[in-house]
Amino acid sequence: MLFQVQMTVKLPPDMPTEKADEIKAREKAYSQEVQRSGRWPHLWRVAGSYANVSIFDVKDNAELHEIISNLPLFPFMEIRVTPLCRHPSAI
Amino acid sequence: MLFQVQMTVKLPPDMPTEKADEIKAREKAYSQEVQRSGRWPHLWRVAGSYANVSIFDVKDNAELHEIISNLPLFPFMEIRVTPLCRHPSAI
Amino acid sequence: MLFQVQMTVKLPPDMPTEKADEIKAREKAYSQEVQRSGRWPHLWRVAGSYANVSIFDVKDNAELHEIISNLPLFPFMEIRVTPLCRHPSAI
Amino acid sequence: MLFQVQMTVKLPPDMPTEKADEIKAREKAYSQEVQRSGRWPHLWRVAGSYANVSIFDVKDNAELHEIISNLPLFPFMEIRVTPLCRHPSAI
Amino acid sequence: MLFQVQMTVKLPPDMPTEKADEIKAREKAYSQEVQRSGRWPHLWRVAGSYANVSIFDVKDNAELHEIISNLPLFPFMEIRVTPLCRHPSAI
Amino acid sequence: MLFQVQMTVKLPPDMPTEKADEIKAREKAYSQEVQRSGRWPHLWRVAGSYANVSIFDVKDNAELHEIISNLPLFPFMEIRVTPLCRHPSAI
Amino acid sequence: MLFQVQMTVKLPPDMPTEKADEIKAREKAYSQEVQRSGRWPHLWRVAGSYANVSIFDVKDNAELHEIISNLPLFPFMEIRVTPLCRHPSAI
Amino acid sequence: MLFQVQMTVKLPPDMPTEKADEIKAREKAYSQEVQRSGRWPHLWRVAGSYANVSIFDVKDNAELHEIISNLPLFPFMEIRVTPLCRHPSAI
Amino acid sequence: MLFQVQMTVKLPPDMPTEKADEIKAREKAYSQEVQRSGRWPHLWRVAGSYANVSIFDVKDNAELHEIISNLPLFPFMEIRVTPLCRHPSAI
Amino acid sequence: MLFQVQMTVKLPPDMPTEKADEIKAREKAYSQEVQRSGRWPHLWRVAGSYANVSIFDVKDNAELHEIISNLPLFPFMEIRVTPLCRHPSAI
Repeated sequence: MLFQVQMTVKLPPDMPTEKADEIKAREKAYSQEVQRSGRWPHLWRVAGSYANVSIFDVKDNAELHEIISNLPLFPFMEIRVTPLCRHPSAI
Repeated sequence: MLFQVQMTVKLPPDMPTEKADEIKAREKAYSQEVQRSGRWPHLWRVAGSYANVSIFDVKDNAELHEIISNLPLFPFMEIRVTPLCRHPSAI
Repeated sequence: MLFQVQMTVKLPPDMPTEKADEIKAREKAYSQEVQRSGRWPHLWRVAGSYANVSIFDVKDNAELHEIISNLPLFPFMEIRVTPLCRHPSAI
Repeated sequence: MLFQVQMTVKLPPDMPTEKADEIKAREKAYSQEVQRSGRWPHLWRVAGSYANVSIFDVKDNAELHEIISNLPLFPFMEIRVTPLCRHPSAI
Repeated sequence: MLFQVQMTVKLPPDMPTEKADEIKAREKAYSQEVQRSGRWPHLWRVAGSYANVSIFDVKDNAELHEIISNLPLFPFMEIRVTPLCRHPSAI
Repeated sequence: MLFQVQMTVKLPPDMPTEKADEIKAREKAYSQEVQRSGRWPHLWRVAGSYANVSIFDVKDNAELHEIISNLPLFPFMEIRVTPLCRHPSAI
Repeated sequence: MLFQVQMTVKLPPDMPTEKADEIKAREKAYSQEVQRSGRWPHLWRVAGSYANVSIFDVKDNAELHEIISNLPLFPFMEIRVTPLCRHPSAI
Repeated sequence: MLFQVQMTVKLPPDMPTEKADEIKAREKAYSQEVQRSGRWPHLWRVAGSYANVSIFDVKDNAELHEIISNLPLFPFMEIRVTPLCRHPSAI
Repeated sequence: MLFQVQMTVKLPPDMPTEKADEIKAREKAYSQEVQRSGRWPHLWRVAGSYANVSIFDVKDNAELHEIISNLPLFPFMEIRVTPLCRHPSAI
Repeated sequence: MLFQVQMTVKLPPDMPTEKADEIKAREKAYSQEVQRSGRWPHLWRVAGSYANVSIFDVKDNAELHEIISNLPLFPFMEIRVTPLCRHPSAI
């Protein structure tokens, strides 16, 4: 089951660089682990923003929430979720 | 070059059914032709709405505009374009 | 799998009363059929508005879309979908 | 009398983890106490967000306010209240 | 139980004057009937707008909805409802 | 001359409790003094929010500004002012 | 007593030119009559828009409403009213 | 003196094609005349929308308004004006 | 050339009172100097808000920017600029 | 390939002046280097705001993102990107 998720990162301006770097490193490792599991088939950078557009392929809403809420950057992101399904004109 | 495009269809409520059907049939044929050309790799229905989320793969902004502005439903859609690029964490 | 759906009805002001009544009668019959199937466990009126708050219990996004897009009032509604899951504090 | 309430939690990013954990523990205990009293019949997590959708069943606006304003997370939440009533098509 | 209700009237620009006048006359009569019942204690014009701010005093959400949805101008109004209760600083 | 004023309080999350309590105590005393003067005839709590809906009865815009800008919570509130006048349907 | 009023004109696209011209002529005459009375001391065009910024000088909210609601274009305008008073730094 | 102007065209869906074509032809001719005068140095299409981003170089606000309000599509456009000036970092 | 400028002041809640007072004193002196030069002919307080509505009379956009960006409160204000010109109905 | 980019700077109010000056100096140097490369052909100040309107001429979305995300002020800006293409009426 597919979901489009748009994530915009808003780090507090006074977060120390080392702390930010540590969170980003964990974010990257976690993100790649989920991608390798096949549940995060698309991850794109929004050109010009600290934001991404993602497509998740999960078995239900609960699995989607579990993946997203475990992102190390979760407390610092604005997140919009759009449930998707097959389009009748898709080939 | 990738773009995310979100399209929401707003047909005038007094459009005759036959006219709407005719436009939708042309929309479907045109959309599938562009999909087959490889320039519209993803087309999803937004669950619960007369809307879609699409990914286009085009050579430049002009080609994106040409494809979208030729959609038979173009005069009846709200359209938001988001330029995408590779995400540094994408595998 | 649960979804909250908020629907606001916007009938064109020049729709003849008989046509509106006919659509509303079909809406009611269809809505009650889906409710009886167990897939629309809650349906509430928003006090003071021609709008409702609904909870749907469906097997996936596609089933949600199929139910909503078949509503006779679908072309005349603004619809917002919120995917839900179990809350860790729910008893 | 029913109300839908949407709560989005925004904890200050510099709140110490122990303080956040302590508030969340009190929130959970208080929330479950109100649920057990029958006045908070539904509590759902919004998938992908630190937010919930709740249904309250109270005797009046004052009781609703008293319950919500006593939530330990109340100072850290954006809250939207929608008064509900019986829908004429509900079975 | 008190509710603040803000109503903004948007009549279709092509509604014939006689029809508009007839609806407004029924609106006035109905409004005054509800005011005399004590359930609509305050009704103010918003200066510079075809809009009003009202306070309703009703026994529950259902009664509020019944009063508002029977307003002859109901199909032509944008309506926002705010549930009120006693303020701890009110004398 | 009547004005509706909607005030939403946003205290900084790191304000010490004693300071917040001291400001709120002064706010209450000042508010009750203005109420007793007859210039603040209605003050209601918005159910579920740290906000109020107020009606002021003042001789002009300057007096309204003087009352509001002297509120001890003034620096911490979002305030919307709506000038009111007699509604032609009011009894 | 001063008010800033922003008016944006939205004529229905299918209004016949003669009718629009007739309304605009009445609007101009009425507007100039109010200006000559001293109650509409400033009237500016917003560059690039069919809109104006106005300053009214009236004795109370009721007079402001009476002037604005009698504008021939009143049914076709979006109007925002801002009550003004003397600024402490004004010379 | 420079201004950025963003124009979005919203033609009524029931405007006859011939009328739309006639307006667009006049728009094009007028636009090119202003461009040739040097007062409209940049005109770009927004990719994916019936909209443009323009830069005008005029002697004052009045000239800007005169150019824009004479556009044949002026009654059918949403227009946003941003006054510009030299940036201190521009080379 | 006229511009309407709306300024809303948002001082950080933890700014020391002396620092705020010092900035406000400089703001007042600077504002009065510009007013005396004839380039800031109107300055009004928005009743109920820490905000003002101003009319500037400058020779071009650059002069407007120079005046505004030198305001001591500039870093703490939300500012909206509206270019004005003569209204055809102004007397 | 052209993009319009609008950048609004929001520096934290408690950033030390020296740090702000150092970032702005690097921003200016970097900006001028990109301008000299021909990829940032237009850079304008928005009159009255700490903001700019820019036109970028890059080979693809990735190059746009690389340029913008390397701006020293990038973490402190709100950024909106609009892809542009040739307008059919441009001369």
